[in-house]
Amino acid sequence: MTQEPVDDIVDATYCALCKHGYAEMTMQNIADECDKSKAALHYHFDSKQALLETFLDALLDNFEDNIADLDGDDPVERLFHLIEYVLTPPADDDGTPDAEFKTAILELKAQAPYESVYRKRLTAFDEYLCARIETLVADGIDEGLVVAERDPEDVATFIKTYLTGAQTRFVATGAPFEESHRLLVEYIRTELLVDGVNVDVSEVPA
Amino acid sequence: MTQEPVDDIVDATYCALCKHGYAEMTMQNIADECDKSKAALHYHFDSKQALLETFLDALLDNFEDNIADLDGDDPVERLFHLIEYVLTPPADDDGTPDAEFKTAILELKAQAPYESVYRKRLTAFDEYLCARIETLVADGIDEGLVVAERDPEDVATFIKTYLTGAQTRFVATGAPFEESHRLLVEYIRTELLVDGVNVDVSEVPA
Repeated sequence: MTQEPVDDIVDATYCALCKHGYAEMTMQNIADECDKSKAALHYHFDSKQALLETFLDALLDNFEDNIADLDGDDPVERLFHLIEYVLTPPADDDGTPDAEFKTAILELKAQAPYESVYRKRLTAFDEYLCARIETLVADGIDEGLVVAERDPEDVATFIKTYLTGAQTRFVATGAPFEESHRLLVEYIRTELLVDGVNVDVSEVPA
Repeated sequence: MTQEPVDDIVDATYCALCKHGYAEMTMQNIADECDKSKAALHYHFDSKQALLETFLDALLDNFEDNIADLDGDDPVERLFHLIEYVLTPPADDDGTPDAEFKTAILELKAQAPYESVYRKRLTAFDEYLCARIETLVADGIDEGLVVAERDPEDVATFIKTYLTGAQTRFVATGAPFEESHRLLVEYIRTELLVDGVNVDVSEVPA
């Protein structure tokens, strides 16, 4: 038996979240996005929460794939590419409703204290991102690029907290990702890199 | 004519937000918290949005008062106290439902793209906090405590983004404020302070 119907539903959930936001989105909205009946959706999922649980799992898998295999000749370049991936401005111009999706994710974060299913997945995202940054920082220390005094776990938690703040401020106040990105790159250059290390990542703003 | 009825409504809104969260809170919930009728509430406010506009204004006034007059012998001590004020763990033990309130505020942030009234106030919070940090950093440079190479506006935006992230992670994943606090103090000590400057703020974790 193929997983395709569930994949379709996951894709439809993304579209429905972007169009309606988390609070207003119904099972019917999701059904409309994949030409299925509400009954067909309920065959696979008992509730909106159960569906969103599967959706968040798929999102986490995708996120893990994307940050597992980063471009870059050394760990610091890969760290810059990771940050770029997380802080890329929403691609509204080509029709992808990414700003709306970031808003829906912030709604899910605000629901996490009430829905343990969301909290569990959001915590998994958080921990996965932290572990990835920690490894890159530790590798950077091993290769003599990052100053040895820094604790990789602390640095990872610090950067992860900052990245979360950049996403929240983007939704809440429209703070541009470009500025958040620039300041984080500056922090890494002045605070983390060994003097004289010059990481050439053309996509990263000076 | 006294402002007291509106003050009562503002207090009642705080309690109703904590009990019900933003999405579920109704005008009736607020009325219940201040022994007023829903009609009395509508005499002062056309809608939940209009009421929350006044509520956010009152909150901003209170926030401005609290961070205008900070304890501390120098700008860096005052910066540490400001951070302590923003990152104080919720006071659930004494019955204040602060964790619930932080969750409600995150719900408001997620609504900001749809409600310009919220975005305007949240932006005002953001700008006020940024301006306060910027002044403290600039004063710290003038007094020889903060390294002169740092740009006060950039530092303020960076710290503000981090503070927002700490609040979001607290709600979404339960990340403890104590750790977010410790890492920010460490950043300020290693990155911002002139070598040899030792700011003695007993309340700040080492």
